[in-house]
Amino acid sequence: MNYNCVIINGLLSMGGYAIAVRLIPGFRQKFIDKNRVGKDFCKKNQKEIPESMGVLIGLVFLVVLFLFIPVPFTLGEIIAMNTNRGITPAIFPHEKFVELLVALLSIAVMMLLGFIDDIFDLRWRYKLILPSIAMIPILMVYAVYYNLTTIIMPKFLRPIVGYSLDIGALYYVYMGMLAVFCTNAINILAGVNGLEVGQSLVISASILLYNFIELALGHQVDAHNFSVYLMLPFLAVSLALWKFNKYPSQVFVGDTFCYFAGMTFAVVGILGHFSKTLILFFLPQIINFLYSIPQLLKFIPCPRHRLPKYDPKSDLLQLSTTQFDKNELNMLSRLVVTGLKSLKLITWQEMADGRVTTNNFTLINLVLLVFGPVHEKVLTQMLMGFQILCTLLALIIRYPLANYFYDT
Amino acid sequence: MNYNCVIINGLLSMGGYAIAVRLIPGFRQKFIDKNRVGKDFCKKNQKEIPESMGVLIGLVFLVVLFLFIPVPFTLGEIIAMNTNRGITPAIFPHEKFVELLVALLSIAVMMLLGFIDDIFDLRWRYKLILPSIAMIPILMVYAVYYNLTTIIMPKFLRPIVGYSLDIGALYYVYMGMLAVFCTNAINILAGVNGLEVGQSLVISASILLYNFIELALGHQVDAHNFSVYLMLPFLAVSLALWKFNKYPSQVFVGDTFCYFAGMTFAVVGILGHFSKTLILFFLPQIINFLYSIPQLLKFIPCPRHRLPKYDPKSDLLQLSTTQFDKNELNMLSRLVVTGLKSLKLITWQEMADGRVTTNNFTLINLVLLVFGPVHEKVLTQMLMGFQILCTLLALIIRYPLANYFYDT
Repeated sequence: MNYNCVIINGLLSMGGYAIAVRLIPGFRQKFIDKNRVGKDFCKKNQKEIPESMGVLIGLVFLVVLFLFIPVPFTLGEIIAMNTNRGITPAIFPHEKFVELLVALLSIAVMMLLGFIDDIFDLRWRYKLILPSIAMIPILMVYAVYYNLTTIIMPKFLRPIVGYSLDIGALYYVYMGMLAVFCTNAINILAGVNGLEVGQSLVISASILLYNFIELALGHQVDAHNFSVYLMLPFLAVSLALWKFNKYPSQVFVGDTFCYFAGMTFAVVGILGHFSKTLILFFLPQIINFLYSIPQLLKFIPCPRHRLPKYDPKSDLLQLSTTQFDKNELNMLSRLVVTGLKSLKLITWQEMADGRVTTNNFTLINLVLLVFGPVHEKVLTQMLMGFQILCTLLALIIRYPLANYFYDT
Repeated sequence: MNYNCVIINGLLSMGGYAIAVRLIPGFRQKFIDKNRVGKDFCKKNQKEIPESMGVLIGLVFLVVLFLFIPVPFTLGEIIAMNTNRGITPAIFPHEKFVELLVALLSIAVMMLLGFIDDIFDLRWRYKLILPSIAMIPILMVYAVYYNLTTIIMPKFLRPIVGYSLDIGALYYVYMGMLAVFCTNAINILAGVNGLEVGQSLVISASILLYNFIELALGHQVDAHNFSVYLMLPFLAVSLALWKFNKYPSQVFVGDTFCYFAGMTFAVVGILGHFSKTLILFFLPQIINFLYSIPQLLKFIPCPRHRLPKYDPKSDLLQLSTTQFDKNELNMLSRLVVTGLKSLKLITWQEMADGRVTTNNFTLINLVLLVFGPVHEKVLTQMLMGFQILCTLLALIIRYPLANYFYDT
């Protein structure tokens, strides 16, 4: 590990935290004045809360890393570069330099797109296209600098397809999809105070833990150093946001934050060469996505908001539900519903007239289905706890289990 | 000149134009729905016009250049890079690659900051700080790759200070100031339909003309190629915006566009090593700025809007004025005013009670003072014509006259 650089990065990140915790309350009124607000549905008085605060901490993140740009390149390297002007010296680690710049470029563009989405409420198809656009610079640089599109096969597949397989252009599709997945996965696991930032905190801490383990093992030092350089400032500014976004929220984070977080994770996963492990850290998001599919694909009617229902009497959150006529369901929908019912993963109440009431298919509701009504603050804590459990599972899969499938 | 790259860049730019002219009308209603509108003051019916359209064409500009990223690097170079993975081959022009990425990073961040300014109407001091923030990556890369802070002296100064002078950190201040100047200079020469885009079209065409002259002369080929790569897409997307922003405006461009344009000019000026010539292309903006100083510094009262006054009867634009008590002026203000009066650069009407009416000190009003009331469309054309004249003057200063001061 490059201790000096990590320490400087950590100090800059702390500075970023200090600035962010001052900026957020300072800008609250500005956001309210300009009507950049959203309703907090799970409260007695549905107050209007400043929305899209992610853009502020995103800017602080960028400035921290702008100032960090020259740091990983030792003075010796820079002097060699400056004195050999014109003749590129072999000593300077250009790839590292380019990776840092292109990572910041993709993240900055994603922030811009996220903020545009917050302002204009773009349609779903745009939400799928935008992360791919922000990903183009990474893919272009990958093509120029690496163009490595070979994947190592798990042992049990090697007799059939060999040790490795060059999937060519498909590898670029995979990287683009990863950005679409990471950004939207965080965006759809949302709706209760603090959840977007909470899950991002756990994911970034998990990535850092993984990076430090790998650095301690001496694996791919450059790649994991790079990841640490991005994750420390991300964790710092997210903690500042968490201070104001946790229950009871004084600010909302906006799509800007979800896109910013997701893109930052995707970028370190790809340029840090640990995209498979990264996906493991997204287990709760994957479960939420899979469970949501029947509603996302409109097999089951999907209301505009799927957040849990607030009960003002008990101050607890309850399952939110959707109603429909049983006869509306097509063949495939019935099959899916029967499966979910028999696994007890959904509620199901049929009236005599054929009207059905079932819960909205989100991970948040699933937690409420298992544990019953809970307070909003506890619900976020439970979901963050589940995210932490999944990280432990991910590390078990990554370390002991991976030996069965790969030579590590 | 790298003909193949310029041709590919030109084709991509044409594609960008084609997409932008479709996107702008498509998004007009979206902007209106979300109340992203501004009043058109110089019209009979002060219609609300979609505002901040600069963000759309800015995105198109970025995507065009994202797709262009690998192009300037010949297949041979890329193959050498890929096959020598790990061992950086000397053949690959890393500086060019880094320059392209960092230019896009700074421009993208400036767009984000411009859009934030459009949404939140930031105060003046922020308008001065934001371009410096967006400039940091350029300065950092400059420090790592060049750190060349020596300026060549004009001949007449050489006996005193020598052939060249290393101004050290001041050079970085100069580069930062250039970004602040370029972005705000375009932003304050505004107020009549089409003017922001119109002046940017002339400036970008002037830069392109200068680049092609230098390329034809074989001077600093890489630097001028780089400038062409950015200026062609800029010209293309700005032309698309001009189609809808020219009189009578169907869309407004927003601070986003002014910042995007100014930053793009600053970036090519700095990384293309022709910042002095660039400043010459900003002559009308410099005149506007100097003329505005008495109002910007509040020597003379400065109303919120300084745009010309619309006369609904004649459909012409007239001088806009500001009123104040003569006794309010301090010593320095009186001196400045006396000078401007004697040069006939301002109007001046004194009432018996000491109240004074004078025009707002903007280049737009200066044109109206010289030529009398004109139609809004003609006013923009006159100002663009003046910008073209200044470009010719700039080229005369740059070529024949520069020989007297420098060895070229």
